[in-house]
Amino acid sequence: MSSTSSAPIVDIHTHIYPPSYIELLKSRDEIPYIRQFPPAQEHRLVILPAEDTPSTSRGRPIGPEYYDISQRIAFMNTHSIRTSIISLANPWLDWLPPSTALATALTLNTEINDLCTLHPTRLYFFGALPLSAPAPSILTAITHLQTLPHCRGVILGTTGLGSGLDDPSLLPVLAALSTAHLPLFLHPHYGLPTSVFGPRAAESGHVLPLALGFPLETTIAVTRMVLAGVFDAVPELQVLLAHSGGTLPFLAGRIESCILHDGHLKAGGRLAGGRTTIWEILKRNVWLDAVVYGDVGVRGAVGVSGADRVMFGTDAPFFPPLDEEEEEEGEEGVEGKEADQEKGQKGKRWLSVQLNLDAISKACGAGSEEEKAILGGNAIRLFGLDLPTEGTST
Amino acid sequence: MSSTSSAPIVDIHTHIYPPSYIELLKSRDEIPYIRQFPPAQEHRLVILPAEDTPSTSRGRPIGPEYYDISQRIAFMNTHSIRTSIISLANPWLDWLPPSTALATALTLNTEINDLCTLHPTRLYFFGALPLSAPAPSILTAITHLQTLPHCRGVILGTTGLGSGLDDPSLLPVLAALSTAHLPLFLHPHYGLPTSVFGPRAAESGHVLPLALGFPLETTIAVTRMVLAGVFDAVPELQVLLAHSGGTLPFLAGRIESCILHDGHLKAGGRLAGGRTTIWEILKRNVWLDAVVYGDVGVRGAVGVSGADRVMFGTDAPFFPPLDEEEEEEGEEGVEGKEADQEKGQKGKRWLSVQLNLDAISKACGAGSEEEKAILGGNAIRLFGLDLPTEGTST
Repeated sequence: MSSTSSAPIVDIHTHIYPPSYIELLKSRDEIPYIRQFPPAQEHRLVILPAEDTPSTSRGRPIGPEYYDISQRIAFMNTHSIRTSIISLANPWLDWLPPSTALATALTLNTEINDLCTLHPTRLYFFGALPLSAPAPSILTAITHLQTLPHCRGVILGTTGLGSGLDDPSLLPVLAALSTAHLPLFLHPHYGLPTSVFGPRAAESGHVLPLALGFPLETTIAVTRMVLAGVFDAVPELQVLLAHSGGTLPFLAGRIESCILHDGHLKAGGRLAGGRTTIWEILKRNVWLDAVVYGDVGVRGAVGVSGADRVMFGTDAPFFPPLDEEEEEEGEEGVEGKEADQEKGQKGKRWLSVQLNLDAISKACGAGSEEEKAILGGNAIRLFGLDLPTEGTST
Repeated sequence: MSSTSSAPIVDIHTHIYPPSYIELLKSRDEIPYIRQFPPAQEHRLVILPAEDTPSTSRGRPIGPEYYDISQRIAFMNTHSIRTSIISLANPWLDWLPPSTALATALTLNTEINDLCTLHPTRLYFFGALPLSAPAPSILTAITHLQTLPHCRGVILGTTGLGSGLDDPSLLPVLAALSTAHLPLFLHPHYGLPTSVFGPRAAESGHVLPLALGFPLETTIAVTRMVLAGVFDAVPELQVLLAHSGGTLPFLAGRIESCILHDGHLKAGGRLAGGRTTIWEILKRNVWLDAVVYGDVGVRGAVGVSGADRVMFGTDAPFFPPLDEEEEEEGEEGVEGKEADQEKGQKGKRWLSVQLNLDAISKACGAGSEEEKAILGGNAIRLFGLDLPTEGTST
């Protein structure tokens, strides 16, 4: 479908665990970690509390698609993706001891920038911040990112310095990002307490924490930022929200109405004239990916932030295809994928990617200017990528 | 705007605490309860754990708009609402001792039916079920509701018999509702654990639990029903989801994709052919109110379930206007409202109602057939109300 478009496709939501990070994860024995679970030979990556249970669904098999940049380039070729802005996957550096966090961040961001250098104009990246380190170290990491030519922003979870992104102590960090013109890619990791999914949650594998916990976490985090006045304090801050804002486009009206009807906010003078509405913030401070797997979601994202602020993403290497071969062999992931790639030169296209391409195409019209903008034009403009906005996709 | 439409307006999401329920609440000293907090004279209704804290935002002032049916008729006249399907507000009968739950349900449902009898064709109702009672008592209450001529369904929270609506033990109740052609109005109450809103939540009054906790609770509950196969076990069950499904229209694509990519579900054979997709359930089993306060939300609801399954609602008497007079006098609610009603014969229109009318009008086009269907035509047809689908609103 959309692969016939002549505009370049840019993937702004795609993750990597660089080799040094993989080694860090292998050295750990609590989440996040990578480990073998005998008798299985494969290594599995476990990053969420809800998936750290002895079952067939413990974490996910981890292979070179997570750390080998040449596999990412192959994935991009398979899907006609011209350029990717790669980012460290969750949980980033949130869990590092304060004493080593800055050094790890500097090493890791340099390592990712070097990967981008290997593939000029095909790879850019969002850096990671050492949020567990003292405040000056975080600012040092931001300054360092400004020296890395392929850096186009930072990826951040929802905890901030420990108590959320509405923490006033985080404002200097957000202000520094704004001054450095580094957008903040806000991405979930912690989900919601397992209890909210009820006693039968495990029967449906990872569906509830991934399908609901993730977007609800993002929605809560960004709403807390709005309520705390973060976008008034740092009015030029640009925030790219994962998964089309979680559920923010759909709930924006309810959030705004609840604000307008809250006696406590009114009594505190916080509904006085001049207040920035959530609708204004959505068009001024928010960028949305189009990783929402449905045209209704894409229309919602475009409806609240505009077709010039929504951008294609894949969430790779997560959500690989579940192949028939894999089921028959009782294995998942790497082996199946390698077999696939032997079958066809360009490898097999992923269902999860196609769902998002189809959603954009259905929402915007195949071949429309809006579709082209969302597939790549917006990313090229907003992130200042060194690409023409028109051209043949590679 | 929409009040110029010639089609009748039907409000399918509007609550009441009948007098006997008010007395029950006054007799209690833990939530839900009604109490005075000296030195204030007014009674306040506290129903949510997050609002049961000593502050200016403790619960909400409660006046006759919550229990006096003539005030509801006045509210309807003010807003040109022809007919309302009233329902007991949360937390319904969830908290009753098992030994008295059935008797209370029978009395209360009879009392609400009698209120409807006072205003023929202007009022219908959703009944309440004694879910804490033994299973046969719940079925008795359903049989009783079938004898009440103004009953058009039941209103239910998300706990079911105690562990959620995906509990297999609840299936006989859901099957009985389906057989009796009584739709289930699924409404949130419990929200999410306060911890997810962070240490600064109280600074924004009730916004986070009301704007996010409520819709997220609904989304989780209905997704659990989907995953548990409830709509396969009871394929004709009709579920009306409060607040346009919480966030279900926006997240449906992600939920479906997470299902299709879940190795655990696949290994269990649950992705085999013939599975009912969430898209099919949304068009076959789900009705949505249009209480979403924004055109993006209305478009999302219509996008997933169709313009023939979305229906206007007000959520009254919640979200009354915060008037200037109230702020100046340092009081909220009843006194302010009475003053308003003295000023104008028809009373003052509510912002919360207007936001939803405007959202429907903007999403569907003012005066369009789709707008008329959502404002009233769908409710008349789906609930079999004894009204013409065209006519002058009262």
